[in-house]
Amino acid sequence: MTAINYESYKRLIFDRPYPGVLKVTLSNPGKKNSIDEIMHPEMVRVWHDISADDDTAVVILTGDGDAFCAGGNFDMVRQMVEDHEIRMKNLREARDVVYNMINCTKPIISAVRGPAVGGGLVCALMSDISVVAKDAKLIDGHTRLGLAAGDHAAIIWPLLCGMARAKYHLLMCTTISGQEAADIGLVSIAVEDKDLDDKALEIASQLADGPPTAIRLTKYTMNHWLRMAGPIFDASLAFEFHAFTGPEMREGMASIQEKRKPVFPRHSAF
Amino acid sequence: MTAINYESYKRLIFDRPYPGVLKVTLSNPGKKNSIDEIMHPEMVRVWHDISADDDTAVVILTGDGDAFCAGGNFDMVRQMVEDHEIRMKNLREARDVVYNMINCTKPIISAVRGPAVGGGLVCALMSDISVVAKDAKLIDGHTRLGLAAGDHAAIIWPLLCGMARAKYHLLMCTTISGQEAADIGLVSIAVEDKDLDDKALEIASQLADGPPTAIRLTKYTMNHWLRMAGPIFDASLAFEFHAFTGPEMREGMASIQEKRKPVFPRHSAF
Amino acid sequence: MTAINYESYKRLIFDRPYPGVLKVTLSNPGKKNSIDEIMHPEMVRVWHDISADDDTAVVILTGDGDAFCAGGNFDMVRQMVEDHEIRMKNLREARDVVYNMINCTKPIISAVRGPAVGGGLVCALMSDISVVAKDAKLIDGHTRLGLAAGDHAAIIWPLLCGMARAKYHLLMCTTISGQEAADIGLVSIAVEDKDLDDKALEIASQLADGPPTAIRLTKYTMNHWLRMAGPIFDASLAFEFHAFTGPEMREGMASIQEKRKPVFPRHSAF
Amino acid sequence: MTAINYESYKRLIFDRPYPGVLKVTLSNPGKKNSIDEIMHPEMVRVWHDISADDDTAVVILTGDGDAFCAGGNFDMVRQMVEDHEIRMKNLREARDVVYNMINCTKPIISAVRGPAVGGGLVCALMSDISVVAKDAKLIDGHTRLGLAAGDHAAIIWPLLCGMARAKYHLLMCTTISGQEAADIGLVSIAVEDKDLDDKALEIASQLADGPPTAIRLTKYTMNHWLRMAGPIFDASLAFEFHAFTGPEMREGMASIQEKRKPVFPRHSAF
Amino acid sequence: MTAINYESYKRLIFDRPYPGVLKVTLSNPGKKNSIDEIMHPEMVRVWHDISADDDTAVVILTGDGDAFCAGGNFDMVRQMVEDHEIRMKNLREARDVVYNMINCTKPIISAVRGPAVGGGLVCALMSDISVVAKDAKLIDGHTRLGLAAGDHAAIIWPLLCGMARAKYHLLMCTTISGQEAADIGLVSIAVEDKDLDDKALEIASQLADGPPTAIRLTKYTMNHWLRMAGPIFDASLAFEFHAFTGPEMREGMASIQEKRKPVFPRHSAF
Amino acid sequence: MTAINYESYKRLIFDRPYPGVLKVTLSNPGKKNSIDEIMHPEMVRVWHDISADDDTAVVILTGDGDAFCAGGNFDMVRQMVEDHEIRMKNLREARDVVYNMINCTKPIISAVRGPAVGGGLVCALMSDISVVAKDAKLIDGHTRLGLAAGDHAAIIWPLLCGMARAKYHLLMCTTISGQEAADIGLVSIAVEDKDLDDKALEIASQLADGPPTAIRLTKYTMNHWLRMAGPIFDASLAFEFHAFTGPEMREGMASIQEKRKPVFPRHSAF
Repeated sequence: MTAINYESYKRLIFDRPYPGVLKVTLSNPGKKNSIDEIMHPEMVRVWHDISADDDTAVVILTGDGDAFCAGGNFDMVRQMVEDHEIRMKNLREARDVVYNMINCTKPIISAVRGPAVGGGLVCALMSDISVVAKDAKLIDGHTRLGLAAGDHAAIIWPLLCGMARAKYHLLMCTTISGQEAADIGLVSIAVEDKDLDDKALEIASQLADGPPTAIRLTKYTMNHWLRMAGPIFDASLAFEFHAFTGPEMREGMASIQEKRKPVFPRHSAF
Repeated sequence: MTAINYESYKRLIFDRPYPGVLKVTLSNPGKKNSIDEIMHPEMVRVWHDISADDDTAVVILTGDGDAFCAGGNFDMVRQMVEDHEIRMKNLREARDVVYNMINCTKPIISAVRGPAVGGGLVCALMSDISVVAKDAKLIDGHTRLGLAAGDHAAIIWPLLCGMARAKYHLLMCTTISGQEAADIGLVSIAVEDKDLDDKALEIASQLADGPPTAIRLTKYTMNHWLRMAGPIFDASLAFEFHAFTGPEMREGMASIQEKRKPVFPRHSAF
Repeated sequence: MTAINYESYKRLIFDRPYPGVLKVTLSNPGKKNSIDEIMHPEMVRVWHDISADDDTAVVILTGDGDAFCAGGNFDMVRQMVEDHEIRMKNLREARDVVYNMINCTKPIISAVRGPAVGGGLVCALMSDISVVAKDAKLIDGHTRLGLAAGDHAAIIWPLLCGMARAKYHLLMCTTISGQEAADIGLVSIAVEDKDLDDKALEIASQLADGPPTAIRLTKYTMNHWLRMAGPIFDASLAFEFHAFTGPEMREGMASIQEKRKPVFPRHSAF
Repeated sequence: MTAINYESYKRLIFDRPYPGVLKVTLSNPGKKNSIDEIMHPEMVRVWHDISADDDTAVVILTGDGDAFCAGGNFDMVRQMVEDHEIRMKNLREARDVVYNMINCTKPIISAVRGPAVGGGLVCALMSDISVVAKDAKLIDGHTRLGLAAGDHAAIIWPLLCGMARAKYHLLMCTTISGQEAADIGLVSIAVEDKDLDDKALEIASQLADGPPTAIRLTKYTMNHWLRMAGPIFDASLAFEFHAFTGPEMREGMASIQEKRKPVFPRHSAF
Repeated sequence: MTAINYESYKRLIFDRPYPGVLKVTLSNPGKKNSIDEIMHPEMVRVWHDISADDDTAVVILTGDGDAFCAGGNFDMVRQMVEDHEIRMKNLREARDVVYNMINCTKPIISAVRGPAVGGGLVCALMSDISVVAKDAKLIDGHTRLGLAAGDHAAIIWPLLCGMARAKYHLLMCTTISGQEAADIGLVSIAVEDKDLDDKALEIASQLADGPPTAIRLTKYTMNHWLRMAGPIFDASLAFEFHAFTGPEMREGMASIQEKRKPVFPRHSAF
Repeated sequence: MTAINYESYKRLIFDRPYPGVLKVTLSNPGKKNSIDEIMHPEMVRVWHDISADDDTAVVILTGDGDAFCAGGNFDMVRQMVEDHEIRMKNLREARDVVYNMINCTKPIISAVRGPAVGGGLVCALMSDISVVAKDAKLIDGHTRLGLAAGDHAAIIWPLLCGMARAKYHLLMCTTISGQEAADIGLVSIAVEDKDLDDKALEIASQLADGPPTAIRLTKYTMNHWLRMAGPIFDASLAFEFHAFTGPEMREGMASIQEKRKPVFPRHSAF
């Protein structure tokens, strides 16, 4: 296999806290590691690199400092509103980050503290094992912004916390604490914030010392459940992106930037 | 769109507690809002009317007084036993109420206090968000009556509370409190009885003020999970209805009416 | 129907604690009822016999003494490593025990105390209703042994406890107490160890007195969810068995027999 | 494995035209091998016996004389109309014959001459390889009798001849010649009537001389397509059987017995 | 049931050539019955009206004069390009016409002569039985226009003519004659143009005289295959509609209007 | 995007017969382009390179000289029998070539003359459009070799030529001419051998001049049918590979090398 050129990444920091464990840190300092047009494609291609990296058996995915990831930043979102090409590029990337995490051959452990919002929540929940601080804040965030929940929820939430809870949290755009997320099965486990990194590393190092084929095939076949829900996800994603040229998201964005309550249009074609 | 003629309904009461919120109250006073041959078809067609109603963004579905709905009443059930045509009409309606709630374009919030049994439980659990009083009593009720659980359980329980709990409660025909239902994911949330209406309205009004397209498409694509389980549901329903001409249900009904323990036949072709 | 020749079984003990209830006890005394080459095919064919047995309406499946079942014993596993024919025979049996439990027409109630490991866990969790002692120990055990989790997990865990918990426990090969198993939905209910047999019998006798067709069809149609996941299960099982000719399982077995930490190979083709 | 007691069958004739080849002949002389209450359960259990029969690698399924099988005879059908228990027994058998053919471990080759109608067509088309005389007459027959096409069509016709042709032939209840059936993919191949037995035996003997595991697993995994459509089939079957207590089938039967055009009721609850 | 107000339709002509048969004629004279903003919503709602119409057992769907339907006209398409709301309205309608034909309780027979293009082809092929003139011209038309094939192909073509032919015709945007369409299973049957109306009426009248419940349930359960592919269809449709704000469709449309070969952009985000 | 290093390939020849068209020629001269341990991984990774290659819009996949590809050569197969690691590596590659062709963003056109056997047939039929010479020879070849048909058949044959034909050809290991393959839908079209290259280029150049997003998304969403059958494919593949350590394949290989009729063992665990 080719040596991986991790130095080419600008928003992901890589280090190796244990043999076989690659720690990937989402990093956009001062911006709660929000996703910009540099980080987004990096979140897509990193999983191919990791699959091809013979030195890596397990991945820890975490955020820099006291946040996991605050989601897409406004500059990127604004460009998606204005430019068809950029919108389509982001649509493909939003699709591929989900499938690439599902199809990455190595297990991925998310270690989540602080806010995990939008595309950040995607990374937290599409990981194979999700370890969260009890006071982490998980927010899907779509409906507040005037968007249908389309970037990962439809492919996995019904198999995490069940339909009744899934629709409640997605439609209401609630803030879910790490503790509650663990209680309802949205994440694997919750620990005290101070123990988060140790716990993630403990899990990762156990897996790194484990039988690699057995572990990879366990992930692989379990994920067939997600692959079979792929068309549902694709539909949700493609529907979501239509909002970028419509009035609901325009108002959602404006209201957030103007720090006011949104006044959404009453009418919908749907 | 056409103006909706809600006045034509006889067992459903409509009012508008908030702009965009339509409250639908199942009402069969003195009978715990049990379902009769008038209410049953109304529970089917109301969802078409609501989808077509431009003044409605969100629905609250609740019961009149201190019960949600006690299920099909005995007169209706007896007619289904005796008359092929009526049985087939009810089979179609039982099917359509499930699909029509799934396909209703607007989100539905059930507010459940007291008993929710049989067809009443269908309405409670097929709603997108289910808010229940902690001391509500949820009873599927099929096996007690000599029927296979066929009117909604197979399409959604495995995605609500998981297979192990689902089969336990369905086979044993347990009474599940609202609190326990929330604990296992069968409903979205449980609140004190006194807070039930306020909570349902709080949720409904937030959704009514939300982005309509985003909210409707979130419901729509999540529900693909249920649509893909449609054939399982149809099989369960069509199998269930064969019991109406058989000995198990005859005994189940008789024993309930005679307030005694049933003595079911030992033999089954299955 | 033919009379069933239960006397021909050597590792399963049969008795009838209540009319219509057949209690099946896994028994391999002094070995925690571990599965040997005699028990394994018996666990496959017993479900056909029970489906054909007119005197049985419900099954209780339990373990002899203070263990449910410790999984496949080392002699059997060693033979599977060494002999292609024996391996293929066990692959077919491992497949058929899962499908035969799913397709057994009568409901199966597992009563689990002590350890339920590997093939023992299969029997515990593929039962329709699983009652466990709070201090029972549920262990999938595959990855510790160098195997992909392939004997039942992929067909049912996502529908029991959700994907995030399922992958955590399967990949980490945790020991799950009966209480925790009930909390996350992996089993139906947990009770005190001393109450286990009574609770299982209470459930079984209620079902035995219930309407047989209604109960069987409820099980039958609910299980369509599992049948539709059949190809996922088959893939997981067929992949798992390749490990029997590979280095990871060799090391897993050796390390257990030598009571030492395994040192798995780093490299994997997958 | 147990020796199979083929002598216990009354409507199936067994012989062994080639080592490893078991020829099963549907036989109800003078009645075009129509299915009666004796043949029906035999068509269900024979596949278990064949799976367990170590002397059989391949099955040829054919009809006695110049007919394959004319479907259910009127006495049996009348009993199904009149008696709930008999109807349910037949419903289960109709279901099980389809699944048992799918799950029979050995490949089944149908050799079809003359009419293959109703339950006879089930056997012809659920076989793994279907060889038909060019002038054979394939008739689903359900809608002529006032029944929904429910005994096998929904599980396999869309994967044989496509939806447009499937619905045309099923709804119109056409007579399809063997040649046309081969042209549209409904059967594997069509040959001259005089060559039918030789061709079937040629195929069977080649398979009997082939690698048994490879052949059985090829059948097995291809049939996952059918298993995944199982719920669709079950729904179609359970819906079909409701007609036995309704007016459409009553008229269908009467009109056939009175050799006149049926006059079906105009109204339907569906 | 309510009397149906067919007079309110402006682009659909209704007549009753046989008891129980409703003939629906797409009519936009002088424009090859192309779809405009009046016809499009009528093609959606007519199926609800027909399901509710007690006087109709079967539908014939045909085109006025010597064309079936030339697809969406340019004015409508231009509005969809320019106006988000109109685009979303058309997206919903394009989705609903497919599902409403699938879920219409009565069988639909298309009688196709001349061109059936785009949305016209949807109506032709989503009908339950499709009868076409041998020299009819079937054209999907999407890729020529710069659009992904998204309005019905993904839900049904693989089950009509198979994947290899489906992708060939869809990607190449071929013109398929009625004869060839019948040969590959894309339609039910092809007849001489002069015999088209008689053949459609012959089929329709036979079905109208048939058992209504049996016929409707046959359609209903067969269509579960299509419902289960619903998420694939929705994804294809939602993806397709993104092209309306992009450069490929702009060029596709321009080139058609300017009657020249298109020069599509080379680059794609996908 | 990175420039693609096509020079690193040893068994694939690349040229560009038209702008945007990349022609990939399987080349193992003098060996009918049979697959060796060099070609196999190249057939896997080339699709990633092509997806990333901005200069390529469409691929033509063909064979060098008068053969398409004779399948895996005996040296490679023998190594797979003898060495667990090599077997597992080939299992992964056999899986990935199928998924990578499905997920390659650009349309692939196979141009097939002469024999296409085993892994060669995989490439021919997993292409989006398959153009074959009328006298090409398509042979699955698995059962002749003592293997279950596991490398692509289960994922696509039922959607190409239907189940009855699929099982016939796979179980019987027939040689299918290009003409017959086109007649039954196994390939897109058949042409005279002399016209093969021109036809493939004509198709490819039309697609290269077409709208790239529209074409790619048409392929992408159609292929969801195949992705949803992924678990069936994986099961078939993982089952197939067990034969490499068993007696049936040993005999199959020996008999071919010794140019004699195989004498397979009679017994099978399955």
